[in-house]
Amino acid sequence: MHSSLTKHPSVLFQPSGKTVDGSLGNVMDIARSIAVEIDAPCGGRETCGKCRVIVREGAEYLSPFKDAEGRFLSDSEIATGYRLSCCSSILKGGRVVLEVPPESQLGIQRLLAGGMEPDVTLSPVVTKAYLELPWPGAGDLRADTDRFLQVAGEKLGLNKVSIGYDVLKELPRVLREGDWKLTCALKGGEVIDIESGDTKERIYGFAVDVGTTKIAGYLVDLLTGKVLTSISTLNPQMKHGGDVITRIAFASKAQQNLEELHKSVIDAVTNMISEACGKLDLKQSEIYDVVVVGNTAMHHFFFNIDPMSVGKSPYAAVVERPLNVRAKDLGLGVNKGACVHSPPNIAGFVGADAVADIIATEIHRAEELTLLIDIGTNVEIILGDRTGLQACSTPAGPALEGAEISCGMRAVEGAIESVWIDPKDMTVGYRTIGRDARPKGICGSGAVDAIAEMLKVRLISNSGEINRNGGMGRVRVQNGKREFVIALKDDTSIGKDIVITQEDVRQIQLAKAAVFTGVLMSMRHLGVKESDVKKVYVAGAFGTYLNPQSARNIGMYHDIPLEKIRFVGNAAGAGARALLKSSTLRDEARDLARRIKYFPIGDEPDFQNDFMNALYIPHKDLELFPSVKRLLG
Amino acid sequence: MHSSLTKHPSVLFQPSGKTVDGSLGNVMDIARSIAVEIDAPCGGRETCGKCRVIVREGAEYLSPFKDAEGRFLSDSEIATGYRLSCCSSILKGGRVVLEVPPESQLGIQRLLAGGMEPDVTLSPVVTKAYLELPWPGAGDLRADTDRFLQVAGEKLGLNKVSIGYDVLKELPRVLREGDWKLTCALKGGEVIDIESGDTKERIYGFAVDVGTTKIAGYLVDLLTGKVLTSISTLNPQMKHGGDVITRIAFASKAQQNLEELHKSVIDAVTNMISEACGKLDLKQSEIYDVVVVGNTAMHHFFFNIDPMSVGKSPYAAVVERPLNVRAKDLGLGVNKGACVHSPPNIAGFVGADAVADIIATEIHRAEELTLLIDIGTNVEIILGDRTGLQACSTPAGPALEGAEISCGMRAVEGAIESVWIDPKDMTVGYRTIGRDARPKGICGSGAVDAIAEMLKVRLISNSGEINRNGGMGRVRVQNGKREFVIALKDDTSIGKDIVITQEDVRQIQLAKAAVFTGVLMSMRHLGVKESDVKKVYVAGAFGTYLNPQSARNIGMYHDIPLEKIRFVGNAAGAGARALLKSSTLRDEARDLARRIKYFPIGDEPDFQNDFMNALYIPHKDLELFPSVKRLLG
Repeated sequence: MHSSLTKHPSVLFQPSGKTVDGSLGNVMDIARSIAVEIDAPCGGRETCGKCRVIVREGAEYLSPFKDAEGRFLSDSEIATGYRLSCCSSILKGGRVVLEVPPESQLGIQRLLAGGMEPDVTLSPVVTKAYLELPWPGAGDLRADTDRFLQVAGEKLGLNKVSIGYDVLKELPRVLREGDWKLTCALKGGEVIDIESGDTKERIYGFAVDVGTTKIAGYLVDLLTGKVLTSISTLNPQMKHGGDVITRIAFASKAQQNLEELHKSVIDAVTNMISEACGKLDLKQSEIYDVVVVGNTAMHHFFFNIDPMSVGKSPYAAVVERPLNVRAKDLGLGVNKGACVHSPPNIAGFVGADAVADIIATEIHRAEELTLLIDIGTNVEIILGDRTGLQACSTPAGPALEGAEISCGMRAVEGAIESVWIDPKDMTVGYRTIGRDARPKGICGSGAVDAIAEMLKVRLISNSGEINRNGGMGRVRVQNGKREFVIALKDDTSIGKDIVITQEDVRQIQLAKAAVFTGVLMSMRHLGVKESDVKKVYVAGAFGTYLNPQSARNIGMYHDIPLEKIRFVGNAAGAGARALLKSSTLRDEARDLARRIKYFPIGDEPDFQNDFMNALYIPHKDLELFPSVKRLLG
Repeated sequence: MHSSLTKHPSVLFQPSGKTVDGSLGNVMDIARSIAVEIDAPCGGRETCGKCRVIVREGAEYLSPFKDAEGRFLSDSEIATGYRLSCCSSILKGGRVVLEVPPESQLGIQRLLAGGMEPDVTLSPVVTKAYLELPWPGAGDLRADTDRFLQVAGEKLGLNKVSIGYDVLKELPRVLREGDWKLTCALKGGEVIDIESGDTKERIYGFAVDVGTTKIAGYLVDLLTGKVLTSISTLNPQMKHGGDVITRIAFASKAQQNLEELHKSVIDAVTNMISEACGKLDLKQSEIYDVVVVGNTAMHHFFFNIDPMSVGKSPYAAVVERPLNVRAKDLGLGVNKGACVHSPPNIAGFVGADAVADIIATEIHRAEELTLLIDIGTNVEIILGDRTGLQACSTPAGPALEGAEISCGMRAVEGAIESVWIDPKDMTVGYRTIGRDARPKGICGSGAVDAIAEMLKVRLISNSGEINRNGGMGRVRVQNGKREFVIALKDDTSIGKDIVITQEDVRQIQLAKAAVFTGVLMSMRHLGVKESDVKKVYVAGAFGTYLNPQSARNIGMYHDIPLEKIRFVGNAAGAGARALLKSSTLRDEARDLARRIKYFPIGDEPDFQNDFMNALYIPHKDLELFPSVKRLLG
């Protein structure tokens, strides 16, 4: 005892590295005092269980466990050192190290901490070189093209330099305007563009992830590899259906429909590029390379390839191999010599975006069995390690992305991202993205959170039915359907209540059952158990604001220790950026895709039955979810 | 004597092979009786000297030489066996073989006899193959593209088959419409188009020679190598200048001017293709390959390459190497997978058409020193043999093609192609293309003929001035300028007189002086004399109807024995057809062009002076033209 009395108290928070000296008292308060953000929707009332920290050092200086903590933490988590920050205090001096785990970090901070910018050695496909040419004269009657190609070959040390027709046409003007000094953009030995004077410092690329619901784009400096800006927009194809099957059906009706879907996504991406370039004062023609990823249907629409075969049995892709298509041929507003690269698709329902996920998370190099779940309208599930990977997919629909639910919206400012219900008085607390913003609607993660909380306080049953008598007046019937009010209209910025309807619960049930069943089939197909899976990557923008406990509590994935889960945000986008920066990775992606074993989950035995059981919240068999069982008491 | 009495008279005409038995009498009459066409504008009055035949056998059965013949035939020609058919008769029995030399054949017959369809081993760049693919099913989920490429690779025995984006897009539709049976058009290992079912018998190409004044096109069956139809039209760029320099100046004024010149020639060729396909009931999309030749400026305009540098010193081309440009990128109306190939240019003023000339005439394989003169608005002159070739060019202007002379027209039906003037009474005789057609105008060869005849009867002086007192009333003054009436308005189909004006004479003088000086510089540069040249090819549509004596008499080329001259018509077009049929020849043309030595004739010493002397008719130094001297008495 006497030795500890002499010790000076100090707390180090990870991963932020922030330290506070000499403070005793409640951990949540100490964290707030130095602006370490810990998720706590109940505000420290010990009722939400989300303000988790892991005690990495100095557990002996903390207050003893409270009963409330036992409700929210599993035995293995307790053994690891998990505490709830609202329930624990530092009682005496000594060094304490506390880790704020990803699930307790707030939204985007969680991803930033996750560092989903894979470390890539820069080897862009397009480079630039500055050249000075000798003038023509009586003794040197070489044609412009020969003059240029000969000098370029010598100075660049290339055996063979070629020049396409589009560039060749510009040569006489560019040479003369630049006084025979020019910069060429090169793709291998091919000159894809030429510019008068020295412009070799200005070389950019654009990576884009075309999701069924959302499109995310990234403008990258190809000289430094830095992401200069990112931009996102809704996929304008949404008006022709929220899911890929509806869009494929629309496209099949008439040739011009396919054309329309194609053109709308190309135009959307061109607009993003224009906006990104505007922000940074670049010309669109300074974008020399584009990488696009998306699921197979989005990929086919982007490239104007009829995806009819993707929409019906046996659901084959039209093209799997990597594509390199002239941006000009697609009508994309970038440099006219630029190509659009897509990594390979794996199957009709596992697209180039899944390959990008793998590239970003590097699970093809993982030593341990790793699971990757990319949650979007379509959910791709990759399972394996460096010895081999297996892929499948399952359609979750757009609900998890905030679409097609009654008050749904994208996860942008004003969206309710987190919900908490006080079991004592059914008070509803929520947090919006942008913190001080008044709510406009609810995003996918908010809806998942709301349903998990509603389950916790028994406002919905195991089968997902809203309890008509619950909620202290917050449950009501509108147009014959029950709904639960999350935010009252006076508190919103839209002048009406924000609610979760019975139909919304059904949408989320279908979505989460799809994810759960997909993972189940995946493990079963590979012959592994959930305990064999050592690491889980959850990808997709949806995961950015998702509370992983809530997701687990509604049964979106197995009752696995949260510490195994890592949220990686838009991994497909990160993979696209990596492929933009590295030609080596493109080769790797091509070879990798050939080795991934795809299986259709619909063909698995008991698939239908397992899916039906997974529709329950969290599952028909509550024994599979000991954490939830404990929570419900 | 007694033996010849017993002999039966027979005459064999070559190259037609027509024979007549038992006839005695005038050779021209005998020829006419069996429809052997011999040029004779004076109608047998012994005054035009054009009805030449060569007695190859049986000279002893013919009547003795007349004085009239001595005027028109040189000593070497007489020694070779030349006679005028109007002046010679078969007097007694025995076998006589008479050759109608090219210069005495009529227009197009002369070219047909010349056989300017070079003998090419068919090895087209594009071929077709028919394939049947296995259907996809549960056990075979290959993407359409992989399925197709794998089967194509196996069945065609190709290591690598590739498919471009444009074709790939069509694959799902074509495969399903054709019940997984399809035909692919292949360029090496690249699939450039696919069609449902078996279409392998339908594969065509188009060869086109873009002249400054005229465009000639040829539709070729790539399966047989046969030319199915040919078609020609005026170059619509004519309205922006008759010569290349004027057009380059126009193009230099504004970007849209270049675009306009480009588009007008592309549209003209597309119209020709459409017309040719219409005639033969083909689809334009069944044309899978195109070869285009033209002088460097025409080449650059066709490919939308700014030819500014061609228009000013040092007159360098923008591109010399062979081009292969997607027809689609040029807007040319053929199969969308087709490429347009151009053989290399040699210099700013010796273009791909000259390379095509060489390919057609094979002078790069010639054992003896050979001269090739391609007469168009621009005249290309190639001199050499299999050990090496030298090229230069000279601008003749459009007069020889019937343009920019007062009553000028192209060499089509109704054009006066041949003129004859009776020295006794100045009666003018003429022949039109289409024979019975009433004259509409005068084509280049007609104008050359007219001037040669005017010289013969001294209607023009050595300096080219029209003699105001000559012509028995046929020389008159209109608007202060002298002109000579060839056809009276009552005889024409246009209701006005057809005349040769003083200005027309000047145009022809400039043109013929350009040709003469070009040939002179060429021989001088190579260090050879005219007697060293063993063979002369005269190419260009202009030569089709040209009377070679007339051309020589006005001094267009040196006073060489006419038997050395071979008219090859549109050799550039023939070369283009050959290149369309043979990929081997394309390689040959590429290698060949690198070895041709170009020299600019303007840099030659005494060029200006020699040109001035050549403006005289036939030349300032009449001693250089002994044939003409004799003719003028």
